[in-house]
Amino acid sequence: MMTQMESARKGTITPEARLCARKEGIPPQKLIRSLANGATVIVGKGKKATAIGSLAATKINANLGTSHEYSDTKEELAKLRSSIEAGADTVMDLSMAEQEKSLALMIENSTVPVGSVPIYGAFANKDIASVSEDEMLKSIARHLELGVDFATIHSAMLLKGVELSKKRTMPIVSRGGCFLASWMLHNGKENPLYTHFDYILELLRASDAAISIGDALRPGCLADSSDKAQLHELKVQGELVKRCHRAGVAAICEGPGHMPLSQIEKNVKLQKKLCSGAPYYVLGPLTTDIGAGYDHITSAIGGAVAASAGADFLCVVTPSEHLGLPTSEDIVDGVVAMKIAAHSADIVKFGKRERDDELSLARSKLDWGKQFSLSVNPRRASSIYNSRATSTGACSMCGKYCAIRIMQKATAKK
Amino acid sequence: MMTQMESARKGTITPEARLCARKEGIPPQKLIRSLANGATVIVGKGKKATAIGSLAATKINANLGTSHEYSDTKEELAKLRSSIEAGADTVMDLSMAEQEKSLALMIENSTVPVGSVPIYGAFANKDIASVSEDEMLKSIARHLELGVDFATIHSAMLLKGVELSKKRTMPIVSRGGCFLASWMLHNGKENPLYTHFDYILELLRASDAAISIGDALRPGCLADSSDKAQLHELKVQGELVKRCHRAGVAAICEGPGHMPLSQIEKNVKLQKKLCSGAPYYVLGPLTTDIGAGYDHITSAIGGAVAASAGADFLCVVTPSEHLGLPTSEDIVDGVVAMKIAAHSADIVKFGKRERDDELSLARSKLDWGKQFSLSVNPRRASSIYNSRATSTGACSMCGKYCAIRIMQKATAKK
Repeated sequence: MMTQMESARKGTITPEARLCARKEGIPPQKLIRSLANGATVIVGKGKKATAIGSLAATKINANLGTSHEYSDTKEELAKLRSSIEAGADTVMDLSMAEQEKSLALMIENSTVPVGSVPIYGAFANKDIASVSEDEMLKSIARHLELGVDFATIHSAMLLKGVELSKKRTMPIVSRGGCFLASWMLHNGKENPLYTHFDYILELLRASDAAISIGDALRPGCLADSSDKAQLHELKVQGELVKRCHRAGVAAICEGPGHMPLSQIEKNVKLQKKLCSGAPYYVLGPLTTDIGAGYDHITSAIGGAVAASAGADFLCVVTPSEHLGLPTSEDIVDGVVAMKIAAHSADIVKFGKRERDDELSLARSKLDWGKQFSLSVNPRRASSIYNSRATSTGACSMCGKYCAIRIMQKATAKK
Repeated sequence: MMTQMESARKGTITPEARLCARKEGIPPQKLIRSLANGATVIVGKGKKATAIGSLAATKINANLGTSHEYSDTKEELAKLRSSIEAGADTVMDLSMAEQEKSLALMIENSTVPVGSVPIYGAFANKDIASVSEDEMLKSIARHLELGVDFATIHSAMLLKGVELSKKRTMPIVSRGGCFLASWMLHNGKENPLYTHFDYILELLRASDAAISIGDALRPGCLADSSDKAQLHELKVQGELVKRCHRAGVAAICEGPGHMPLSQIEKNVKLQKKLCSGAPYYVLGPLTTDIGAGYDHITSAIGGAVAASAGADFLCVVTPSEHLGLPTSEDIVDGVVAMKIAAHSADIVKFGKRERDDELSLARSKLDWGKQFSLSVNPRRASSIYNSRATSTGACSMCGKYCAIRIMQKATAKK
């Protein structure tokens, strides 16, 4: 069996590559050249196949999954459905309770690729320090067996990085990162996901899953942004990407986090340079730390700027980030906000303005049905309009003073 | 009586200048130098005085006011209160029904400066073509008499601009702009707000109100962005700013609208260059046309980027933009989103990160009360947290797997 990357290097157009090329509106030959050098990756098999990277439209991921306190797999499945309906291109199951059961259900029920953080399984309900290296590696093997399409593996945080993080306002905010750092500090050993990276690559290669190289040291606040700890991990990510590519394994790099608007473009360019052009998967970035309750908005601001600068994959942040486990409604709000960010960036990156132009034309004709159907969330657009409809055919903001209508009359007279 | 600009040129520190300097945390001498050359303006008298411009923190304005179909001044007063509570620095009353009554009530009840678009009063319930030039000018005099602090006056749209707009997908989306353009086309005459500009300056000078030079031809969709019509009006705005400054009248320029992310910075720099550094007041810009129902988010993305690039004043867009008259809740959502954009930009423009750092420190200590109080909307943050609280002291996202807590334990052991 060959991975998508290996097939592409041989010049083979797999069914997945053909499907992704069609979805992206590019020639398959062009796509496989990008797959071959790792600038674009395909996650998911068969109909789920989704391209992420420099040639593809910006993709968004929604995080799902139970927490220790709130564990209801039915509710998580409902969230899965609503996030996909709202526009999520992939989902990650980050469950901490009944992990394997939840992941298996997600994979079975999802129509989009599913990712996970396998080591959560190794650390859940365990004394962190006593978890064995073997248990960590087995958790990866187990998630791949279950059929996960991409896996976050925090291989790039070394003891040196952990040391550098100690001076921070918020040393480590990544859950996987804190499990590993805590283990490393207690046992005085290097990160097993780094020392056993070749074995991890064998596992990934065998099931052709993509690695999402975690950013365990992603800044959790503006004060820690672009610091030595973050840049140290980014350099190690770059080294690991090279090893992935040599092994024929598709690699994505995860990134911040919290970051002032002015640092985002520089950060994206640096990631592309250090990581051989591999796709960049950012969480936000959140452009201020004061947005709790509205962090879908702070992250949409940062996400739009990051993706415009070249980031390829945006992780949804919900309004309940920093405050609690999101509800289904929170997830839809987060997905739509990030979809807007991704689309705003695709207008810049690829000139993808067809839908905007079609909607604007419908707006200029006061064709409400068409405006709704082309909107990011048709149901919400029509519900707001209908809640305050007028008899004029224009919306209740302007009613008979609708600028569009007045100009139509004014120019028709001529 | 001297205007704030004239006083500043004489080196006088007025009570308003002193108050604004204190609010902005800058020396009064520095502020008045900026007032003197028009890069910063003060709107509002006495305690309402608010600085807008290159030396001041980014300000946000909330639009209020009745529509022809929904006219309830009590509801508008409730919106006034909630928008100020949510963080609006100024409000504009854009009422089309019972206009003077509504404006007078706003001015009486507002603790922040109030702006208006006087010519709405001249055109409401009239046959557009038959409104006299005198009625237009009288509407401005009347609003100034009522005590408005700043007035949008669409003086920069000339017949040539109207002509250029005819080729657009959406010719004119500004309500004031469409009244005037319709009048100009019907009567075959130049814009009276341009031809009588010297008289308008006399009115403004006499009451020391600031002019917000309207952008009647602001692009209403991405397809029309940065086109000849927009740039023609921008050049005229630049000419008018010079005339304002010669007359000692504070001037602000209004801007887009809808604009792809990649054009925003260039647009802001151009405005600053053409308009003698006068404050730039942008509506959004909205970075995509497909966001109906979520245009507080599309505009927060554009607003953050615009303000980072130097825009000074952001107009709130609510979730019901393009769909209907906003509810009080819509306005709060819009104000908070734009507040996040403004603050994200102030971090870039002025390094104003104190509140972020304080909140991050509280977050690193799991001090929830302090996190809420420093958040952009404390009530919402605490309500989300409490709706899914846990017994662990951490939030329900991570509970006992809280990264912060795990790292605290891990490093305390050492």
